Amino acid sequence: MITGILTPHMVPLDAGGRIAEAELERYVSWLVERGVHGLYPNGSTGEFLRFTADERRRIVEIVCRAAAGRVPVVAGAAEGTAAETIRACEHCHEAGATAVAIVSPFYYKLSQESILAYFREIARHSPIDITLYNIPMLASPMEVATVQRLAEECPRIVGIKDSSGDVAWMARAIAAVRPTRPEFSFLTGWDAALVAMLAIGCNGGTNASSGVVPELTRAIYDAVRGGDLPRANRLQAALTGLFDPMLSGADFPEGFRIAAGLRGFAMGPSRQPASEGQIASRRTLAEDLRARLEELGMDGDRPGQPIGI
Amino acid sequence: MITGILTPHMVPLDAGGRIAEAELERYVSWLVERGVHGLYPNGSTGEFLRFTADERRRIVEIVCRAAAGRVPVVAGAAEGTAAETIRACEHCHEAGATAVAIVSPFYYKLSQESILAYFREIARHSPIDITLYNIPMLASPMEVATVQRLAEECPRIVGIKDSSGDVAWMARAIAAVRPTRPEFSFLTGWDAALVAMLAIGCNGGTNASSGVVPELTRAIYDAVRGGDLPRANRLQAALTGLFDPMLSGADFPEGFRIAAGLRGFAMGPSRQPASEGQIASRRTLAEDLRARLEELGMDGDRPGQPIGI
Amino acid sequence: MITGILTPHMVPLDAGGRIAEAELERYVSWLVERGVHGLYPNGSTGEFLRFTADERRRIVEIVCRAAAGRVPVVAGAAEGTAAETIRACEHCHEAGATAVAIVSPFYYKLSQESILAYFREIARHSPIDITLYNIPMLASPMEVATVQRLAEECPRIVGIKDSSGDVAWMARAIAAVRPTRPEFSFLTGWDAALVAMLAIGCNGGTNASSGVVPELTRAIYDAVRGGDLPRANRLQAALTGLFDPMLSGADFPEGFRIAAGLRGFAMGPSRQPASEGQIASRRTLAEDLRARLEELGMDGDRPGQPIGI
Amino acid sequence: MITGILTPHMVPLDAGGRIAEAELERYVSWLVERGVHGLYPNGSTGEFLRFTADERRRIVEIVCRAAAGRVPVVAGAAEGTAAETIRACEHCHEAGATAVAIVSPFYYKLSQESILAYFREIARHSPIDITLYNIPMLASPMEVATVQRLAEECPRIVGIKDSSGDVAWMARAIAAVRPTRPEFSFLTGWDAALVAMLAIGCNGGTNASSGVVPELTRAIYDAVRGGDLPRANRLQAALTGLFDPMLSGADFPEGFRIAAGLRGFAMGPSRQPASEGQIASRRTLAEDLRARLEELGMDGDRPGQPIGI
Repeated sequence: MITGILTPHMVPLDAGGRIAEAELERYVSWLVERGVHGLYPNGSTGEFLRFTADERRRIVEIVCRAAAGRVPVVAGAAEGTAAETIRACEHCHEAGATAVAIVSPFYYKLSQESILAYFREIARHSPIDITLYNIPMLASPMEVATVQRLAEECPRIVGIKDSSGDVAWMARAIAAVRPTRPEFSFLTGWDAALVAMLAIGCNGGTNASSGVVPELTRAIYDAVRGGDLPRANRLQAALTGLFDPMLSGADFPEGFRIAAGLRGFAMGPSRQPASEGQIASRRTLAEDLRARLEELGMDGDRPGQPIGI
Repeated sequence: MITGILTPHMVPLDAGGRIAEAELERYVSWLVERGVHGLYPNGSTGEFLRFTADERRRIVEIVCRAAAGRVPVVAGAAEGTAAETIRACEHCHEAGATAVAIVSPFYYKLSQESILAYFREIARHSPIDITLYNIPMLASPMEVATVQRLAEECPRIVGIKDSSGDVAWMARAIAAVRPTRPEFSFLTGWDAALVAMLAIGCNGGTNASSGVVPELTRAIYDAVRGGDLPRANRLQAALTGLFDPMLSGADFPEGFRIAAGLRGFAMGPSRQPASEGQIASRRTLAEDLRARLEELGMDGDRPGQPIGI
Repeated sequence: MITGILTPHMVPLDAGGRIAEAELERYVSWLVERGVHGLYPNGSTGEFLRFTADERRRIVEIVCRAAAGRVPVVAGAAEGTAAETIRACEHCHEAGATAVAIVSPFYYKLSQESILAYFREIARHSPIDITLYNIPMLASPMEVATVQRLAEECPRIVGIKDSSGDVAWMARAIAAVRPTRPEFSFLTGWDAALVAMLAIGCNGGTNASSGVVPELTRAIYDAVRGGDLPRANRLQAALTGLFDPMLSGADFPEGFRIAAGLRGFAMGPSRQPASEGQIASRRTLAEDLRARLEELGMDGDRPGQPIGI
Repeated sequence: MITGILTPHMVPLDAGGRIAEAELERYVSWLVERGVHGLYPNGSTGEFLRFTADERRRIVEIVCRAAAGRVPVVAGAAEGTAAETIRACEHCHEAGATAVAIVSPFYYKLSQESILAYFREIARHSPIDITLYNIPMLASPMEVATVQRLAEECPRIVGIKDSSGDVAWMARAIAAVRPTRPEFSFLTGWDAALVAMLAIGCNGGTNASSGVVPELTRAIYDAVRGGDLPRANRLQAALTGLFDPMLSGADFPEGFRIAAGLRGFAMGPSRQPASEGQIASRRTLAEDLRARLEELGMDGDRPGQPIGI
């Protein structure tokens, strides 16, 4: 069963815009050492759509090798069609991933019937366990009844990541699925709601912030699990204080890439072009984020440093 | 400081569509006896807009008399303009209410600057404490920065009810306001998120469901306060199981009026006309709700009956 | 049959915030002299919700008297309930209005069935013809099928004003209703789409801008009716060049009130409080609008001046 | 200058789900013979995202060969990044396309600054003219000011297709761009607004329906150009009567594929899996569409048949 904090990590690029393979390995290894429970390559934060299908495969291979069995790898496997996605599932399986994550169909807004048919088809042919990925701001929204039917019909489907931040939706999904699939995993991708989601019964989080401050997301997880809600809420306020400018200070996920750079990783240039105005405002954002990280004792990399909260 | 479950109760009508005064008194007294911490007349659930300004005043008078000092009364006081709203505040004060609740300007979607100016003007002249009411689906959405400024500038403003169900918004508001206004009250009006909202630090809830199953909302409040999240989440699932059909089974708030009828109150006909098809489907809804209430031991009125969860 | 440009005019206020009755008369008389085909008191632009029920009645009386039979008066008659609205219809009838306009139920978002039941109930009891008012940004959206059913069932309902600006919706509504109700009137309330709406078959417009530049909206109407689309489109660009800053330069409808002031009417202070920042930015807006009006030869009042387009 | 009706056509597949090359050639040739002014492969209706990058290239090659210089080909060239998109532009150029169409960045919702930077980068390197593609329901919405800046800065950008159906947006864009770029082409992709869009000055349409009833979209274009708005509106009602069920009768663009099948083309199975319930409801949809086509004299293929309107 998938539990804890899984990091939908970014991909460092070299000066030529190619995957910086060694830096990617160093980065995800650091995440594991700083306490995340798993890795999640090719998520939205990982800009999966800005890589070619071949590059996405290469990213999975590198991350699985770097994880080296220390933590599970849940790899994004969505391609343009069910058939291509099934082929990506096969590749993730061969590369050693623990499971795949497949986003609800995007661009076209599909009906619940089509979403069901899509995931059923993939679940029928995938050699590897599947987690659903619901992100209604960016892809066809999944209703609770759809999640419930997929959970009941498809043993291959073992969990869901939801990035809506809607606790009522999540609570309804848990109530609908857990009685018949107690090992089904519910993960939240909305960092500003992490404490609330864990409090209502989520099994963990797949949070972009954990690619920047893995210590902090891990501490939140531990505080809720340990029953210390007041501490969890204080930590949450610190996390949201970082999450909000990372999210809105630059077009997603550039704020997170900048912040990972502040932890000591050479993230390289974005594949999305930026104007001169944007480049200037990102320098300001970086200064702001650096100050916030310093306050938490998380600027650069300081192993063993306790969180100042 | 306003804490606990405050009920935005409905208004029983007689066969002629007039306020059924005696039944209203009996109903709100029953709510107090069943454990709610306060009463909230003239909220959205109370259909404030479907009464004339005179009727709204009459409702406040009846409820204050029936409360008889046993619990606080937070009375909806919004009228069409700031000037009329100030006059309503004065009346609520004279009638003996503890505070008023004022919804963010509705119909016109106003800017944050206009919302600020509106509440500042009212706070400057009101003789009674004010709680803000944010319900972004129905009225001009309030940003966290607006709430923060009002809390800092206006001592008359002592709390906020938010009905968005957005826990991240609520957590940001608490983090922004509580350091300087520790006694400022945060109340959630989205019943399906009650446990999550209390877990992240809300002071209570103003939940339409508490007008139907006051015992259950009170039990949720007590479970979270007592640190028993697993029990709170089980109770939440039962509450949401009622809330969802009450909310979507008929145009709001008719489902709640039907359900209050099932507890033994003569709610009378709605002021909003209904088609024959709607009347038939409401009968089906009533049967469904009756079965759900029976399962919880909350059909009709059974004092002292423990909640079956 | 209601055709042409009907002005949803504003209401001048005196220094104490009361209706400036003589100025209101002077203003609507001027509109008639400048060519509008009808008057529409108590619309959204007329801030109907910011007046009491008694004031709304007074406004209708003044406007009917000032119109003096020269043009039809279609008076907003929406109140909080069907019963109160019916009483307002009776009053409009007595005051001499030609028809009433009733906005789809607002605040609560009602189903199509409820909207149908609401208008049916009113149509059954109204002594005066009714036009529907669909404004989906502010009130419960009406579907084409709902308009069609009301048109078929209720002879009292004689038209619809739609402020969505959605030409496809309007074309579908016309196609659905006109075969059985050829005299049913379709009016657009979205000024930036006036030419397009007239081109696809609308009978006229109820445009806030016509309360500022009645000459210009009238000229657009005449150009489309006369088959001169190129001229109509040039005039439309000028109108939109005014409409956009009036709409977004201040919270609606303050930009239109400011602009009416520039035509020579003492509109007085808004009933919605404003911050000092807002007051300053409105001064800038007024300068901008004055320049645009000057360019069109429509600053102040210059009778007989041809439009410079 | 790009004018007239350009068809964003679908792609016939064989039983194995591969591109049915000969049928695709036959289909687009038929479109040209039935009067469309251009072809638009790899649009949203053409399901560009459900083909691999290699398949998208193959589609462009086939369509250019089939067009054989008779009509312009505006080929969709969007890939996951600016760099990949530039490579696709180069390929379209080599394959003989007239111009490319590039959708605003999708999945991630980008700021106007990022959209500008993205198109500037592509325009700087593309060897072929570019049309922008704005479809705010599916991709990052483009503001008028962004279109204006791109038109002013980038001579390579020669037009825009907008699928929002928002006539006010289109009129503002035309007013902003045409004075400095009179040859810039404005094309509407919202079939139900075709007459309105042509009436306000659009140069043409890129309408999914033209892949089903090319005669009808062509007749609308000719009627507006010829100044016959009443006839244009009658034809529009017939087109919308087909467009609506094609659009909402099945998940887009399956309804259009079914209807193209009714004109005599073997479209093959969709790449998006369907449930048994969906397959049954599509049979019903096909019957409905067949009846509507018959009424228009457009079932199957009847060369020379006049439109019955």
